[in-house]
Amino acid sequence: MSKPRRHGEPRDTDKPRQDPLYDEDAVPTPSHAEQARSLLERVDMGVLSTHAAELDGLPYGSLVIFGLHDGAPILLISGLAEHTKNLEASPRCSLLVHERGPDNPLALSRATLVGSAVKVSDGDREAVAASFLARHPDAAYYADFTDFAYWRIAVTGVRYIGGFGRMSWVEHDNWATATPDPLLDSAKRIIDHMNEDHADALRLYSEAFSRSGPVPEAVMTGVDRYGFEMSVTTDQGPRPVRVAFDEPVGDATAVRKAMVAMLGRAREQLGRS
Amino acid sequence: MSKPRRHGEPRDTDKPRQDPLYDEDAVPTPSHAEQARSLLERVDMGVLSTHAAELDGLPYGSLVIFGLHDGAPILLISGLAEHTKNLEASPRCSLLVHERGPDNPLALSRATLVGSAVKVSDGDREAVAASFLARHPDAAYYADFTDFAYWRIAVTGVRYIGGFGRMSWVEHDNWATATPDPLLDSAKRIIDHMNEDHADALRLYSEAFSRSGPVPEAVMTGVDRYGFEMSVTTDQGPRPVRVAFDEPVGDATAVRKAMVAMLGRAREQLGRS
Repeated sequence: MSKPRRHGEPRDTDKPRQDPLYDEDAVPTPSHAEQARSLLERVDMGVLSTHAAELDGLPYGSLVIFGLHDGAPILLISGLAEHTKNLEASPRCSLLVHERGPDNPLALSRATLVGSAVKVSDGDREAVAASFLARHPDAAYYADFTDFAYWRIAVTGVRYIGGFGRMSWVEHDNWATATPDPLLDSAKRIIDHMNEDHADALRLYSEAFSRSGPVPEAVMTGVDRYGFEMSVTTDQGPRPVRVAFDEPVGDATAVRKAMVAMLGRAREQLGRS
Repeated sequence: MSKPRRHGEPRDTDKPRQDPLYDEDAVPTPSHAEQARSLLERVDMGVLSTHAAELDGLPYGSLVIFGLHDGAPILLISGLAEHTKNLEASPRCSLLVHERGPDNPLALSRATLVGSAVKVSDGDREAVAASFLARHPDAAYYADFTDFAYWRIAVTGVRYIGGFGRMSWVEHDNWATATPDPLLDSAKRIIDHMNEDHADALRLYSEAFSRSGPVPEAVMTGVDRYGFEMSVTTDQGPRPVRVAFDEPVGDATAVRKAMVAMLGRAREQLGRS
């Protein structure tokens, strides 16, 4: 009989885990609060869980689209819908938002925001509506129907799961102060540009700022306010590298400046010019 | 001040609703129970809503993959996970499953299965595992970890929403006897074949069996056990037509036989040969 195994990090046995070539504890990465906040910026649909009023409080899931106003999720829902009747009877709820992608669903990042839903007051309605309709212009068609109202979810905590084995509870204060990554809209452009025009620089960053040594290829795979990530080719196959910026960046221009400065430092450090 | 509007069928005002060219009450269509059952066959990931044990029962949503065994949703979940702790404390739950697609999320069909989750007994484990792993072969890697167990959701009712304005509660008995559409795997092939090779036949079906009259084009858009659907070109733009088979079909061969017989009848009725 085989030895019982403990729960580890599930992984495809055909593809052994790629050990990182950098010190994961030393290189700053976005916090779970920040990752969850960025996820809400990218994804505009989720599942609302409410206490089913007609089923003695049974946890009931329904599909919703949501907007964001001052960082809080906003719903525009009809009083005729089950979830609205549920919230009117019991406001405690959660909103699950998950990344979409072709990968194993359990490798996708997701966040469950827990809290209470409150109807938006008349005084706040105009500002909230503007935020919501900026994200969901099609909803303008029914936004003024008399049975529809805006609700705000007052979030008290967030469960964030970044994929296998990367998860935590984010407390209210950390959530309330977290901001979405400033590079959300420019990341793809930056990555494409670096991979197309600066493959040589990427190899130097890896050699200078990770444990990879010289590599034949380094492909940028991600960039955020704290640094950037690459998949570098090694004798053991592709391995992840993350390199931190000296300080958090606020936009694509700052990324460019940081990259140029780091390239000079890499060359100096490696004794090349 | 504009007159308050009642909640209608939200629709894109640029694209007026396409009035069907057939009698919606007379042409059989899959029941909501059958549509929900077929949806579970096509989609293998959903959101589980549970009572959060550590948050005084707050409705908590989490992402899960699920299998099907004797028509019941099966979960393979770790005792270390929040949702499992929640189910151990309170088994009442729901599973929301929704279609994916590029359309407006609120136009997507979805089903919320409500009921209670029960741990699969040792006696049933092998059969349940075989069903689950047939659908999720990657899960074999962690299926035998000691902290993982199979759970079955005993469904007591289903809320089905087929899109804007098409929704109902499906009672337990209707759900328990509903079977997935037998054409799920062959529908795409049938549709492609008909559109590529039998465009003339499709026009004749529409002329003979709907209110369209002669049409320059009829494109098959769907087929199920009870009939098939087309989008036909008219002076008012594309309009939907649904044509019923004489009796429910069980496979692609039966569709072919039914189509051939109906073509003969259409020609006869229209006085063409």
